[in-house]
Amino acid sequence: MKIKRVRVTPIAFRDAPLLNASGIHEPFALRSIIEVEGDNGHIGLGESYGDAPVLAVLQAMQDSLVGLDAFDLNGLRARVIQTVARLGPVQAGAELAPGSHPSKQVANAYSAFEVAFLDLQARSLGLPLVDLLGGAVRTEVPFSAYLFFKYAKHIDAPYAPDSWGEALSEEQIVAQAARMIEAHGFQSIKLKAGALEPEHEVACIKALKKAFPDHPLRIDPNGNWSLDTALRMAELLGDDLQYYEDPTPGLEGMAELHERTGMLLATNMVVTDFEEFRRSVALNSVQIILADHHYWGGLRDTQALARMCDTFGLGLSMHSNSHLGISLMAMAHVAAAVPNLTYACDTHYPWQEEDEEVIKGGKLPIRNGCVSITRAPGLGVELDQDQLAKLHEQYLSIDIRSRDDARQMRKYDPAWTIRKPRF
Amino acid sequence: MKIKRVRVTPIAFRDAPLLNASGIHEPFALRSIIEVEGDNGHIGLGESYGDAPVLAVLQAMQDSLVGLDAFDLNGLRARVIQTVARLGPVQAGAELAPGSHPSKQVANAYSAFEVAFLDLQARSLGLPLVDLLGGAVRTEVPFSAYLFFKYAKHIDAPYAPDSWGEALSEEQIVAQAARMIEAHGFQSIKLKAGALEPEHEVACIKALKKAFPDHPLRIDPNGNWSLDTALRMAELLGDDLQYYEDPTPGLEGMAELHERTGMLLATNMVVTDFEEFRRSVALNSVQIILADHHYWGGLRDTQALARMCDTFGLGLSMHSNSHLGISLMAMAHVAAAVPNLTYACDTHYPWQEEDEEVIKGGKLPIRNGCVSITRAPGLGVELDQDQLAKLHEQYLSIDIRSRDDARQMRKYDPAWTIRKPRF
Ligand SMILES: [Mg+2]
Ligand SMILES: [Mg+2]
Repeated sequence: MKIKRVRVTPIAFRDAPLLNASGIHEPFALRSIIEVEGDNGHIGLGESYGDAPVLAVLQAMQDSLVGLDAFDLNGLRARVIQTVARLGPVQAGAELAPGSHPSKQVANAYSAFEVAFLDLQARSLGLPLVDLLGGAVRTEVPFSAYLFFKYAKHIDAPYAPDSWGEALSEEQIVAQAARMIEAHGFQSIKLKAGALEPEHEVACIKALKKAFPDHPLRIDPNGNWSLDTALRMAELLGDDLQYYEDPTPGLEGMAELHERTGMLLATNMVVTDFEEFRRSVALNSVQIILADHHYWGGLRDTQALARMCDTFGLGLSMHSNSHLGISLMAMAHVAAAVPNLTYACDTHYPWQEEDEEVIKGGKLPIRNGCVSITRAPGLGVELDQDQLAKLHEQYLSIDIRSRDDARQMRKYDPAWTIRKPRF
Repeated sequence: MKIKRVRVTPIAFRDAPLLNASGIHEPFALRSIIEVEGDNGHIGLGESYGDAPVLAVLQAMQDSLVGLDAFDLNGLRARVIQTVARLGPVQAGAELAPGSHPSKQVANAYSAFEVAFLDLQARSLGLPLVDLLGGAVRTEVPFSAYLFFKYAKHIDAPYAPDSWGEALSEEQIVAQAARMIEAHGFQSIKLKAGALEPEHEVACIKALKKAFPDHPLRIDPNGNWSLDTALRMAELLGDDLQYYEDPTPGLEGMAELHERTGMLLATNMVVTDFEEFRRSVALNSVQIILADHHYWGGLRDTQALARMCDTFGLGLSMHSNSHLGISLMAMAHVAAAVPNLTYACDTHYPWQEEDEEVIKGGKLPIRNGCVSITRAPGLGVELDQDQLAKLHEQYLSIDIRSRDDARQMRKYDPAWTIRKPRF
């Protein structure tokens, strides 16, 4: 089956004012929605970053894929490599979206289309996508409650404030967790940190521990703590954590932190490709990899990564950026096929507004902390063209073209700059 | 699609008196032919070891697979694990067939059925198997000429001697290479060694170098040389080799040999599973892995291995035991899908007699040193039931139930025993 038509549509959706090491989320998040149509009329779906550098490659790919066999993933990779070489290097994206790094141009464009190709294959064959990945070892894929420090509303107030309100204090974070767990039944909790004073962030973990004593906890300062700070916080944290995610920057820093504390360290920052995996193994920098098919090379390469984690005795979880339902189902299908998914995955999905899903039927349910995969063909979701058009219009109506949490933060404090590590 | 019926048929075919570190090939080689029938009437094919310990697991699996979804490879693995646990440990097979080691029971049984499942999937979908592996980066898969020291005939003479005659001297080895290259157009040459005096085996490499100066050369003593001998032969060999395959036993021995010579070392003996891969990476024992889907966990795990080789900067080639056309095509399909197949694969296929192929149409051609993969569904070969019955009858008529090259060698020399390393 040959590819007949490819369409890449940039969209924007409302994003809450979530604080992190790089600043604060802008009022809109960008994504690309990918439709790949086969000459049999079936359409495969994909979702990836919408930042300008990534979008440029995805859009440049559109015509070059017409005529390619939908099963020829090696051919897809070759065409991505050609296109990236032709376009030359692009501007760096935000550090929090590793897939938009220039070094990831090939991996992220390949990943975006690989999912759509696999979805098209599976739909054409009448199979759920997971069947092309070896079949489901689980049909309920566990996710964690992903907590953020946040303001009540965006400073530029382009729309009514979200329903979550401010979350800066211990009480507010515990309330955020309670609401999220009540709504979705999450069995584990992650706190995005690196934004406020480390001692306060650790106090919030202590408060969560007290409120949810049976929920495994994680803290993720996004490498914004010096090694000394990470060591100091490790002492305060004691054995409160399930794992300690990217407390301090660099493979060497993480290696020393593990050496000195024995704590399980997780990452989506220091091991983001196979070369970094190799270096991390040599240094014993991390014990858990947060996979992300958007920049690791799609679903099959995520499986290869999982196999490597198994080989080298590493745990496996999953990283997320702000995303919609197509990405969620791609994450769920590959997670369902990976035997050694040792920890619940991350997802920003609960932060997304009800009226801004691009798939038919609106937002997908997360129940008992899990996303269900069904026997429906492909990813099991259909694109809602009206919603796609609406979110594309929204994209056209705003001037954000690349995520820049620091720029947004400077609207609150013009002197604010990224310093890594800040604390 | 559900599995309706599974049939595992042991067969025997004539095998030439080929010398190696463990003795000499017995007059018959054993294989298992696997048929997995879906409820849509399609049949997937597989081929694996026929030694008793492996066969016991494969046969015990037959009924347990009925009703399983043909896409549920994770389910297949779970059932193999159950069956192996139920059967308990089995007797060790020959060292030269790593897949028959007791430690490989799960991997080899899974591998055997995985190929048949994938073949069934692909046939049902009307796709060549390679399309389920990401598509072909090449349709011509390169193999090497695989030379052996050999006697003119078996001591027990159960059938007329093969047409290759004796090959013990330099001249005879060069003549063997000339015939094999003339027949199949091989572009590289491997000499199975570890059988005669090392100096003589190296002299044969020198003679091959002189006769075929443009053909890359490999020598494989199957770990039968001490480190000292391997070092001494390395000096004699100079830069005659493309790679030095398993000259000396053990990950540590290989690591020291590489450290002291800088030569590229290849293996199918010290890295035969993912755990050994991990240990080899830590020691830098080898630079090239000879993959073999029969014991690495099938075609998908061979792809995972390839990805790991790419990640850790290792070259990739392919190992072979005596086999028929189903295995050859499985090797060819996965090799076709692996971008980083850095060396021509090994195959014993030219040693197989014309009248003993189990696939319709007889032996597959090897031209210009390559096996072609086509767009025919699945592996692209059909089972010849008459031939299968004939080779099964032959299996029933002989008393060999597990490969034992040492036992065979003792028919020539009752005092002969395996000593590793012998030289
Ligand atoms: Mg993180
Ligand atoms: Mg070998």
